[in-house]
Amino acid sequence: MKIDSAADLEFMNELGGVDRTDDGWMKERVLPMEREYQRVSISGEEKCGVPFTDLVDAAKCVVKALFIREKYIALSIQNFCKTTARELGELGEKPLDLRIYEEIPETPVDADAPVHPPVSETHPYENQDTKNMPADTGYSCKMVDGVMHVYTKKSPMEKSTELDLPYPDLKEYIADMNVMMALIINGPVKSFCYRRLQYLSSKFQMHILLNEMKELAAQKKVPHRDFYNIRKVDTHIHASSCMNQKHLLRFIKRAMKKYPGEIVHMEHGRGQTLMEVFESMNLTAFDLSVDTLDMHADRNTFHRFDKFNAKYNPIGESILREIFIKTDNHIEGKYFGHMIKEVMADLEESKYQNVELRLSIYGRSRDEWDKLAQWAVKHQVYSDNVRWLIQVPRLFDVYCTKKQLANFQEMMENIFMPLFEVTINPRSHPELHLFLQHVVGFDSVDDESKPEHHIFNMDSPLPANWTEEDNPPYSYYLYYTYANMAVLNHLRRRRGFHTFVLRPHCGEAGPVHHLVSGFMLSENISHGLLLRKAPVLQYLYYLAQIGIAMSPLSNNSLFLSYHRNPLPEYLSRGLMVSLSTDDPLQFHFTKEPLMEEYSIATQVWKLSSCDMCELARNSVLMSGFSHKAKSYWLGPKYSKEGPESNDIRRTNVPDIRVAYRSETLLEELNLITHAVRTKELDNIDEEDTLSMAPVGAEGR
Amino acid sequence: MKIDSAADLEFMNELGGVDRTDDGWMKERVLPMEREYQRVSISGEEKCGVPFTDLVDAAKCVVKALFIREKYIALSIQNFCKTTARELGELGEKPLDLRIYEEIPETPVDADAPVHPPVSETHPYENQDTKNMPADTGYSCKMVDGVMHVYTKKSPMEKSTELDLPYPDLKEYIADMNVMMALIINGPVKSFCYRRLQYLSSKFQMHILLNEMKELAAQKKVPHRDFYNIRKVDTHIHASSCMNQKHLLRFIKRAMKKYPGEIVHMEHGRGQTLMEVFESMNLTAFDLSVDTLDMHADRNTFHRFDKFNAKYNPIGESILREIFIKTDNHIEGKYFGHMIKEVMADLEESKYQNVELRLSIYGRSRDEWDKLAQWAVKHQVYSDNVRWLIQVPRLFDVYCTKKQLANFQEMMENIFMPLFEVTINPRSHPELHLFLQHVVGFDSVDDESKPEHHIFNMDSPLPANWTEEDNPPYSYYLYYTYANMAVLNHLRRRRGFHTFVLRPHCGEAGPVHHLVSGFMLSENISHGLLLRKAPVLQYLYYLAQIGIAMSPLSNNSLFLSYHRNPLPEYLSRGLMVSLSTDDPLQFHFTKEPLMEEYSIATQVWKLSSCDMCELARNSVLMSGFSHKAKSYWLGPKYSKEGPESNDIRRTNVPDIRVAYRSETLLEELNLITHAVRTKELDNIDEEDTLSMAPVGAEGR
Repeated sequence: MKIDSAADLEFMNELGGVDRTDDGWMKERVLPMEREYQRVSISGEEKCGVPFTDLVDAAKCVVKALFIREKYIALSIQNFCKTTARELGELGEKPLDLRIYEEIPETPVDADAPVHPPVSETHPYENQDTKNMPADTGYSCKMVDGVMHVYTKKSPMEKSTELDLPYPDLKEYIADMNVMMALIINGPVKSFCYRRLQYLSSKFQMHILLNEMKELAAQKKVPHRDFYNIRKVDTHIHASSCMNQKHLLRFIKRAMKKYPGEIVHMEHGRGQTLMEVFESMNLTAFDLSVDTLDMHADRNTFHRFDKFNAKYNPIGESILREIFIKTDNHIEGKYFGHMIKEVMADLEESKYQNVELRLSIYGRSRDEWDKLAQWAVKHQVYSDNVRWLIQVPRLFDVYCTKKQLANFQEMMENIFMPLFEVTINPRSHPELHLFLQHVVGFDSVDDESKPEHHIFNMDSPLPANWTEEDNPPYSYYLYYTYANMAVLNHLRRRRGFHTFVLRPHCGEAGPVHHLVSGFMLSENISHGLLLRKAPVLQYLYYLAQIGIAMSPLSNNSLFLSYHRNPLPEYLSRGLMVSLSTDDPLQFHFTKEPLMEEYSIATQVWKLSSCDMCELARNSVLMSGFSHKAKSYWLGPKYSKEGPESNDIRRTNVPDIRVAYRSETLLEELNLITHAVRTKELDNIDEEDTLSMAPVGAEGR
Repeated sequence: MKIDSAADLEFMNELGGVDRTDDGWMKERVLPMEREYQRVSISGEEKCGVPFTDLVDAAKCVVKALFIREKYIALSIQNFCKTTARELGELGEKPLDLRIYEEIPETPVDADAPVHPPVSETHPYENQDTKNMPADTGYSCKMVDGVMHVYTKKSPMEKSTELDLPYPDLKEYIADMNVMMALIINGPVKSFCYRRLQYLSSKFQMHILLNEMKELAAQKKVPHRDFYNIRKVDTHIHASSCMNQKHLLRFIKRAMKKYPGEIVHMEHGRGQTLMEVFESMNLTAFDLSVDTLDMHADRNTFHRFDKFNAKYNPIGESILREIFIKTDNHIEGKYFGHMIKEVMADLEESKYQNVELRLSIYGRSRDEWDKLAQWAVKHQVYSDNVRWLIQVPRLFDVYCTKKQLANFQEMMENIFMPLFEVTINPRSHPELHLFLQHVVGFDSVDDESKPEHHIFNMDSPLPANWTEEDNPPYSYYLYYTYANMAVLNHLRRRRGFHTFVLRPHCGEAGPVHHLVSGFMLSENISHGLLLRKAPVLQYLYYLAQIGIAMSPLSNNSLFLSYHRNPLPEYLSRGLMVSLSTDDPLQFHFTKEPLMEEYSIATQVWKLSSCDMCELARNSVLMSGFSHKAKSYWLGPKYSKEGPESNDIRRTNVPDIRVAYRSETLLEELNLITHAVRTKELDNIDEEDTLSMAPVGAEGR
């Protein structure tokens, strides 16, 4: 059945009308019944079910951990949960000021504005004149100990003052990391967090039993809005696998008919046409099928990330991957660009679906950024429904063995130098300057289950001295990406440019401590499967409301069977989870991968329509789309706390659900902070708690 | 991404070419490797793992049951598994001849014909002239004891000879049913069948471990063909819920804009316009959403078939159901007809998807058939991708209470009299004659979990005497539907018209003995969930290769959680299962319900591409589409036995898989028949085995 967009659009426009004219009717009809609901409250002493002293010890650890995260998130100008920040603030301990710079002022969105933001009439890449670009500041920069430093003069050699752009102190970071490590294995703390998580599950269960009907009624009362026409963001999806297998197949077949004679590849100095490439594998367009492409994950990829990675090669031929799903090849990524634009067209037709596509920067050479930006600008690869994240594969060891890199610092320089140059002087990389406006942040990718032979501590070699072919550990990659991003963000904020966030793959597999690095340094993460085995971290991720983009279908093919996936448990406890597809090319069958993902989750886990809409709302909240877009999609007050942040007419999430979540979070935070405050009165040396850690370590 | 049909069609046509020109290449390239595979064989005495005497006793029971089925299937001119029939035949006991009438001769399909049957250029309902219809035979008919009898003269009163149209003898049927009942609870037989089913599972597991790669390779070698472009039939789907919720919603909104002033309903004598209907519920087109429609199954429908049935009413208003999803209403089913045609258009665009839609005949009045046929002909509701099944709801008790029916025989007369009349004289019901050409058979529907207070036996009142408001049991409904269908089929075969089959809902819930009726009387069934609790029946359904149309998503919402569904187990054992959607309106989320159904099954149960293609092939085999269509879709020899029946270039199912299935079935049948033969030599009174039954009943 065709989506009848025109008709739908009309209704959209009516919406404004309806709200304005029938505003009273709206309020009277929707609001009152949405506020009222059955609350569960606990009374009596020792509310949390553990002796007060245990509570206090645990609370101190939890608070300490939250302060650590707050510090690093603030330092890098990323977003920290408002509610949590306020509660921590009341603990006296003055946190770093989150408002070092005032927000770039934006025109507020009218409460009754339509759900569709005004579309920009000009293509962002069209007739852009370098002259209109911000001027050169004349700064220079230089990487010292793996972190970029910026100087006021052109050459660092001239005696020039260094700009004060804050970045973390390595010694302090290592110390904080060790505190976190001790804390997550502290027995008593573990049992405490485990109990609280159990409590949150049961409480939600009671909430549903008591309010399910009310939530449903509220949704029914909202005119026009339903799960199909609320905004959803696919928060974790790779550009190179964002089309489904049937789409790629048809595209290849069309390309073979359209450009048979095009030189697509250099074979030892000699150009090869598309036709010749396929002839060399003796294949005709007709022969090709989804089976021959063989890019779908199957039983044999389970717990075999290596086999899965090989699936990225159509027909197992890396050359086809290079020709069709790379941005930097002999045809300058023409085919890939066209395919992505087809995906974009489908998204725009669907109107409500948006994606955050990952594109790769490897850090092997200095011109990767320019090539990528030129690809995007040349082929006009842009859509209002799409934002970019840059994924950096953790492949230093490979490049090092191939002698492409001498040390880790070179990799960092290749990744960050162009970004500093374009920030200092946009005209130095005009395309990059344009492209970056649609890049929201960094992702770090690779098989987390690979063994790590090194532990990041003060004895670890500095990036410039990391010359061994052994790959640096996850935490090392993340720290230096974070540190450079922090400096870059301060520089960009000074110039009035938007800042970036860190959103790594984290806790998909491998050691649990990846989730510690993620907790300390990143605004949100992808996967987080291993939180199910780490109660302390899971509780901390809940209290800090760290976004987790989960892809159960991907997990089901690689690491964890569908019915064992922790998503429904996380959701019930109130963690900030969203649904994402990861790799439609490898996992999905229909033309609507994201809907397929939602459908399966809903069917297998028996989610309610309210759960689905909450997941969708979460996906928008944790996404990198602009404040303005979110104001239209979720409501002008979306960034406030509690039910007032919600506009059911846009989100289809009942205020009841939003109220339950925020009240529950507040109670939980109060329990913790209250315990710490009372203890502080008898001020006992804080270190006690943590020095206990090793002792309690084997507690459970 | 749009389906690029044109391009695809070209490839289709190429197919013919490729085969003809490169035939040798085909053979050499595909065939050899497909024949070879690793076989599992058992040697030694007492192969089947039970003492020989136990084997013989069990074998006799199993054979007896198969003979019973063969008798009733033959009697009604339905299809019985060839392989099984041949093996039984070798037991001497002469079965009813399945070939009472010679097949209507058909032009054979060329081995290299394209996969698309030639399309009829004229619409089957257009300018049909009653004059060209077959003539009146001048027969008459009359229902006696619930079964129709046909006479050579116009009026049964004139002394006229009755036509010899075979139908079952009630006494004999009851006796056979009792034999079956005793047999399925016979302890030793149960253990035997249970062991065999376990054996079949393990054998398949070994087959996969040994041949998975070979099967995959075979699929890859087939040019162009993959899961997306093989034929699939949705073997169980109700017309009134064949559109998804979003489609229905959009249709209603469009109707409200297009026909606001149309009189759609009579409210005590006064006509009501569509607009008035919605105003009376104070709803505007804009207000409507999927949530307000509220037709999707949710947690609250689990084990509540009543609540589920209520979901058929949009916005809980039965009047909207009447207006939009009924064929017999004030607008003569105009809207419903249009909607079905939109669904048909989507199917035709998809090219490879086909459906067998259920339409209702209630048996409340004699003109239901004519109204239904007029609806189909008037609105030209026809598609090559669609065939009809007639579902009869088991609602006698309701009509009886409402005084719409005096006794059960009236219901049977209302259902069958028009069918006999139109068969005797097509011109008496011209539209019905046309419509019936696309009806493949009968379905029996209702909540099987409703308690049954009556057991069908010789003391049961005859249909004419069944006047109590208590509903007749499932077996009673099925028997009389079967009996009349059998007579009708013989009459139709005499006239050269196509015959009907019985394909009831069976074993979705309720008592296991529903599956006994299904086994004895129907060509194939829908659901069959309860076979998982009835090893003897499951084994019999396997040996007779009775088709089972399963709908795990439907079950998941109503009776059985997804991960507990027996489908993967049935499939591994070799039962003839297919995937169907049942009610996309209530269960599915995407625009491709059948693909969604396959996707979820594949992901949750980790099916291989070969499993998926086998399911799709099964769905075509058990469907009611014409022999000709199947010859194009599956290959000209599809009705043969073993791998020669398979054409991987059309089905994408490796010959290895087909060979494994047929060899395994043969071995199993041989084990049974061999045991019986050896025993017969020492001829022991057959009855022994069965008289044992009650004794053994509590065996397990």
